[in-house]
Amino acid sequence: MVEQLEIVLPPYKRGFHLITDEIVNRLPNLPKEGIANIFIKHTSAAITINENADSTVRTDFETFFNRLIPDSTSWFTHNTEGNDDMPAHVKASIIGQFLSIPITNYKFNLGTWQGIYLCEFRNYGGNRRITVTILS
Amino acid sequence: MVEQLEIVLPPYKRGFHLITDEIVNRLPNLPKEGIANIFIKHTSAAITINENADSTVRTDFETFFNRLIPDSTSWFTHNTEGNDDMPAHVKASIIGQFLSIPITNYKFNLGTWQGIYLCEFRNYGGNRRITVTILS
Amino acid sequence: MVEQLEIVLPPYKRGFHLITDEIVNRLPNLPKEGIANIFIKHTSAAITINENADSTVRTDFETFFNRLIPDSTSWFTHNTEGNDDMPAHVKASIIGQFLSIPITNYKFNLGTWQGIYLCEFRNYGGNRRITVTILS
Repeated sequence: MVEQLEIVLPPYKRGFHLITDEIVNRLPNLPKEGIANIFIKHTSAAITINENADSTVRTDFETFFNRLIPDSTSWFTHNTEGNDDMPAHVKASIIGQFLSIPITNYKFNLGTWQGIYLCEFRNYGGNRRITVTILS
Repeated sequence: MVEQLEIVLPPYKRGFHLITDEIVNRLPNLPKEGIANIFIKHTSAAITINENADSTVRTDFETFFNRLIPDSTSWFTHNTEGNDDMPAHVKASIIGQFLSIPITNYKFNLGTWQGIYLCEFRNYGGNRRITVTILS
Repeated sequence: MVEQLEIVLPPYKRGFHLITDEIVNRLPNLPKEGIANIFIKHTSAAITINENADSTVRTDFETFFNRLIPDSTSWFTHNTEGNDDMPAHVKASIIGQFLSIPITNYKFNLGTWQGIYLCEFRNYGGNRRITVTILS
């Protein structure tokens, strides 16, 4: 069985954001067992799984990635779309554009501390589209 | 068809560890063709695929990641769980928390040199839980 | 339903290469909805999704990763296969070895600007094998 839906996220500001509930609340009834593929259709944002409790984790993520790939990087040649654009592309491929999460007993089978992060790497990224595919 | 099992790994010390056999030996009979999703339910450990032969590859991985995100990073604000904790979160999202491996002719269809690594980023990570989901 | 095929890519030179068409043109008829898993069977090359338009994005990726993990890294101990080998392993695990792309209306459901990149990290990587698995 395959079920699919598209989720349009509202604009988030640049940074790492916990969106587990925003995804889960829009899902159809899940199968007893399966896999949920969560795929973001962009090249300057990403999704990952990390700690769902202390928000300072997400702040430290933003600081780390801004230091690793600064907007001020002088030798990037792809710079017509703003100095946050090429860093956003690199960050997106380091983090990745999709998750494949097990479904067990009709729910996402995440660890106690695991949450889903939207990683918004542009200053003004706007709406972001996510395709969710449930396989069972 | 969906089959699912949970594997509890024994504690590994901090570093990169080859766990292909530990996963494969616990699997049920695999289908002729399909996908195996291997998902680690933690935010300070990760799984990846890399060279299965020379153990110096795994040592160099540990050195590289410790230099990229040192425990001594002074500007991390999430530091109440120890100075190895926030670096572990960042490393976990750079490497990733799951694999989706093709199954062909009833076996994992890995390349000759590919093995599955557990990446243990905490000094004392303890047991780690992995959910394996077989889709066919 | 599971369908599977193996694609052998011709040798690409070191760098980031757009291979969307090379993958798509070899696919069988796709199902209405499903997931395509694209898995590269190597440990010194990777695949990711990023911008499919301006080729300077791909040049900047190559420069960034060469600066992050230089061939001249003196403290790598795994160096018998050449000074591009251990950097290639690290880059491969940072980027990742597989994609799981949604299929919608018989086609890959990629965003407007998304393309599939082969990331060739060796100076002379030779042919690269990819297994594509279609789940529906």
